[in-house]
Amino acid sequence: MHILVLGAAGMVGRKFLERLADDGHLGGKAIRHASLHDVVMPAAPAGAAFTVSLSASDLSAAGEAAKLVAGRPDLIVHLAAIVSGEAEADFDKGYRINLDGTRDLFEAVRAVADGYCPRLVFTSSIAVFGAPFHDRIGDEFHLTPLTSYGTQKAIGELLLADYSRRGIFDGIGIRLPTVCVRPGKPNKAASGFFSNIIREPLAGLEAVLPVSDDVRHWHASPRSAVNFLIHAATMNLAAVGPRRNLSMPGLSCTVAEQIAALERIAGKTVTARIRRVPDPVIQGIVAGWPRNFDPARALALGFRSETSFDDIIRVHIDDELGGSFVS
Amino acid sequence: MHILVLGAAGMVGRKFLERLADDGHLGGKAIRHASLHDVVMPAAPAGAAFTVSLSASDLSAAGEAAKLVAGRPDLIVHLAAIVSGEAEADFDKGYRINLDGTRDLFEAVRAVADGYCPRLVFTSSIAVFGAPFHDRIGDEFHLTPLTSYGTQKAIGELLLADYSRRGIFDGIGIRLPTVCVRPGKPNKAASGFFSNIIREPLAGLEAVLPVSDDVRHWHASPRSAVNFLIHAATMNLAAVGPRRNLSMPGLSCTVAEQIAALERIAGKTVTARIRRVPDPVIQGIVAGWPRNFDPARALALGFRSETSFDDIIRVHIDDELGGSFVS
Repeated sequence: MHILVLGAAGMVGRKFLERLADDGHLGGKAIRHASLHDVVMPAAPAGAAFTVSLSASDLSAAGEAAKLVAGRPDLIVHLAAIVSGEAEADFDKGYRINLDGTRDLFEAVRAVADGYCPRLVFTSSIAVFGAPFHDRIGDEFHLTPLTSYGTQKAIGELLLADYSRRGIFDGIGIRLPTVCVRPGKPNKAASGFFSNIIREPLAGLEAVLPVSDDVRHWHASPRSAVNFLIHAATMNLAAVGPRRNLSMPGLSCTVAEQIAALERIAGKTVTARIRRVPDPVIQGIVAGWPRNFDPARALALGFRSETSFDDIIRVHIDDELGGSFVS
Repeated sequence: MHILVLGAAGMVGRKFLERLADDGHLGGKAIRHASLHDVVMPAAPAGAAFTVSLSASDLSAAGEAAKLVAGRPDLIVHLAAIVSGEAEADFDKGYRINLDGTRDLFEAVRAVADGYCPRLVFTSSIAVFGAPFHDRIGDEFHLTPLTSYGTQKAIGELLLADYSRRGIFDGIGIRLPTVCVRPGKPNKAASGFFSNIIREPLAGLEAVLPVSDDVRHWHASPRSAVNFLIHAATMNLAAVGPRRNLSMPGLSCTVAEQIAALERIAGKTVTARIRRVPDPVIQGIVAGWPRNFDPARALALGFRSETSFDDIIRVHIDDELGGSFVS
C-alpha cells in the first residue's frame, strides 16, 4: 500500500513513521511506499523496507494538495497544522493552513474521482471543546472552541464527515488528548508544563510548574497517539456510521497525581526538581481546557490508551530514555 | 441606523423588511437606511420612511462582500443561502455560497477595521443536527449534520463565534425552526407538506400529506421568525457569552396535532381537503430530522414563539389571509 503523511516532520508524524518502518506493514498489508510532506523537509524513518519520497511546501499553495494526492495514496494521514498559539497570534495563517489547507486536501481527493476513495485519518484536538464543561465530556457534547485553532479543527471535523458521507473519501477524525510525556526541549506552549514536570526531572534538570497541584487534565502517551492512528487507519469504518469524529481515550489526572506517580517510579530526589512558580496567565488559559472525558464510542470501537499516569511515565522512560533516568 | 440585509428577496427577509418599514425603528433607534441584497433583485418594502438601496449579485464573487459592507452598516442580517435540496444536488454551489459567501462577508467586515464592529445576525438552521436524537435536543447537544447544507450552516456558526470572540463583529447565530405556515405556492422542499396541509385547505384547495400522522416536527410562524431576528438584532449580547449560536424556541407537534388544530379553527370541511399519499422518499428524509428541542438558553435570553399550533394557524389567517379562509 501507498501511504501519504502530511505533517510528517512533527513529533507524532515521526513516531508514526518509525513504527511503520519497524512493522513493515499496516493492518496486514505490506507498505510499498510512503510519501512524507511537511512545511519543513521531513526525514525518512530509519530502516524502512518501503520506498520513501520527501517533500516540503505550503499545503495551502495552489496546486500543492493535487500534487500530493496525484499518486493515489491508499491512506492519507493528515497531521499538518499550525499550532494553537500561532493560530491565535496569526489569524490569517491559522485559517489558511488549518482550514484552507485541509479543504484543499479534501478537494484534491475529490478531484481525482474515477473511483478513488482513500482512507483519510484527520487528527483533531480536545481544543474543539470550550469551557464550561460537565465533569466528564461525553460523546454528544457540543463543540464550542475558545480559540481559532479549535475552531479550525472543528470545521475540519465537519468537512471530514460531509466528504465521507458523500463517498469522496473514507474519513475518520480523532481528537487527541494532550500528548504527554512530550519528548524534546521545554517549549512555550501553555500546555508544556504537563510534560516538562516529568521529562526534565527524569533528565536531572529542574522544571517549572506554573499552576496549582489540583489542576486536572487529559493525557495520552506518544505511543498511544501512534496506536490511535494505526487503529484509525485499519479499523472497519462501517461500524462508525456518519458521526466520523471521536474523542480518543486518555487518562484524566491532576498535577498532584502526576507528581505522585513520578515519585513512585523515580523517588523524591527526582520530584524535588519541580519548582512551583505560579503564572496567572497560564493558569487562566488552562482553566478553559477540558479535564476529563467519557470516550465511550472510541472505547467501544477498540481504541485504547494508558490507564494510569505511572504507565505514561514508563512509556517515556522506555521509548525515550532507553529504560533509565537520572535518579 | 443603517441596516444591511443579505437574502432580502427571500420570504423571511421580505417579512423582516415589511416589519421594519411598519415600525420605522429598531430597538428604539430610528432607521435611516436599508441596503437590500440578494442573488435576484430584492424589492423595497412599501411605505418605508427610511431610504433603501437595492442590489443583486453573487455574494461569493470577488469584491462583492466588500462593496456591501463599505457603507459600514450598524446591523448586518445574513439570511442568504442556497437551500438544502440545492446544496445537496450541487456540491460546489452549496459550498461556494453557503460557506465561502459567509466567510467572504465576515472577512469583508474584518477588512473595514478602524474600530468597525457591527451587530451581525446569522440565520442557521435545525439542519445542523442529525439523527439519532434524544426526545428533546438540548442546548449542549453536538452538531452532526447529515446534509451539506447543515454542514455549511454549522461551519458558519463556528466562524461566527470565532470572529465574535476576536471582536471583528458582535455576532449571534439563530437556528430557525421550520417556518410554518409558509405562504405562497406548494414547493418541492421535502418539508413543504407541513405548510401545504394547512395553507392549501384554508384556500379551498387540496393538499397532499406524504407521511404518517404520527410524524413529529418543530415549527414557528413567519411572524416568530421576524421576532427572533429583531430580538437578535437588539438584545444585549453580553449575556450570551462566547456560545453565540442558539436553538430558537418553537412548537413541537405531530401531523395529527396540526390537523386537529386546523379542524378546531376551520372545521371538518377544511381538513377533508387533506389527501394521504404516502411517499417513502419523503418519509425517509423526514425520519432524520429533529422533532423536539429544549431551547432553554434562548428562552432565558428572551426569545419567544407560539405555544400552540392553533396560534400558528391564526397567525397565518391574520397575516396572509386578511382574517378569513375558505370554509
